[in-house]
Amino acid sequence: MDAPSRQGTGPDFDDTFRSRLHDLLAWRRDVRRFRPDPIPAAEMEDLLRTACLAPSVGNAQPWRFVRISSAGMRHALAEHVDAENALAREALPEADRAAYAALKLHGLREAPELLAVFCDEQPVAGRGLGRRTMPETLRYSTVLAVHTLWLAARSRGIGVGWVSILEPARITSLLELPEHWCLVALLCIGWPVEETEVPELERAGWQCRLDWQDVVLER
Amino acid sequence: MDAPSRQGTGPDFDDTFRSRLHDLLAWRRDVRRFRPDPIPAAEMEDLLRTACLAPSVGNAQPWRFVRISSAGMRHALAEHVDAENALAREALPEADRAAYAALKLHGLREAPELLAVFCDEQPVAGRGLGRRTMPETLRYSTVLAVHTLWLAARSRGIGVGWVSILEPARITSLLELPEHWCLVALLCIGWPVEETEVPELERAGWQCRLDWQDVVLER
Repeated sequence: MDAPSRQGTGPDFDDTFRSRLHDLLAWRRDVRRFRPDPIPAAEMEDLLRTACLAPSVGNAQPWRFVRISSAGMRHALAEHVDAENALAREALPEADRAAYAALKLHGLREAPELLAVFCDEQPVAGRGLGRRTMPETLRYSTVLAVHTLWLAARSRGIGVGWVSILEPARITSLLELPEHWCLVALLCIGWPVEETEVPELERAGWQCRLDWQDVVLER
Repeated sequence: MDAPSRQGTGPDFDDTFRSRLHDLLAWRRDVRRFRPDPIPAAEMEDLLRTACLAPSVGNAQPWRFVRISSAGMRHALAEHVDAENALAREALPEADRAAYAALKLHGLREAPELLAVFCDEQPVAGRGLGRRTMPETLRYSTVLAVHTLWLAARSRGIGVGWVSILEPARITSLLELPEHWCLVALLCIGWPVEETEVPELERAGWQCRLDWQDVVLER
């Protein structure tokens, strides 16, 4: 009972807050174009601390954050992703390749902060609760921490881009981390060149939004 | 360019909003005890619509939401989870079993709304972008939608509990859904009996919070 005086009823959120929360969700973007200005260290710490408020299976808190501060490591990550990106382009149907090549898919060279987010697949915390049949819930918990950081960043005007065009095991080995640390996300973090309510891939004509009613069923 | 007038710069979020957002993240709980009062249909629709604002790999929007309205289906889900829960308890070290048995791990029988959230592993949308080497990013995208719904719910005072003590493929078959729909989360949704800032498993003495600095490294 860490906070007994705050048990029972929590904060009331009002319509103004809910409306702003909707704006936050609507304007959170996957950012690929960053201004070079640095993120103050205190802001990064706040973001990491906030990310740890995410829910996790069995309260296992399996998220592990690796800040990339070495220029050599940044270069190696960018080269790896560019190589995988070329392979991905070649794997596409011929008709899609030109549109794909025109997309900017990461800001690994420009973003002032790179953060590799891993899931510890053998966490001590949580004592195994809730994941016997669904061990993937550890990685899902790590995704929840990424999203928490993402929203907290956007509320400060800081943009986040999630890079997934890579070989996760290669990143684990490049960063000399334990083999049971599974890469969940490589994040570019920084001030976005522009803000928009429309997803990058919709603006580029790659994929528009679906109607929410088309993804809801009843049983 | 759906919303050209809103391009360029987005909404500014102020300290008041950021402080309330922190409260939201801190007071969002995994809820297992629900009051029986129904959730108005318009609220459920709003939550589902909001969940679809989540980011997704290649804008694939692979989330599929199945509302459980049949009492028979609810009963079958609760029975399945209780059986899996008994197996999970038996698999624990002897010393942990009594503490585990005392935990309430789901509100499947009481929550006014049950929502099974699936990932379509073969979505048309997104045209495969971003997931060649990490197909799991489709499921991660679905997790982002779950978290978006979770936060929107909490901002309305509505609680969400994520049940993972189950066999995902069994739920797909029970609900007669396509085999390539992978269950990501079974959610209990309703008004919580109480609100608290302290995770249920911390209050129960199962697992406390880790220090955020212990999960941050540099490379």
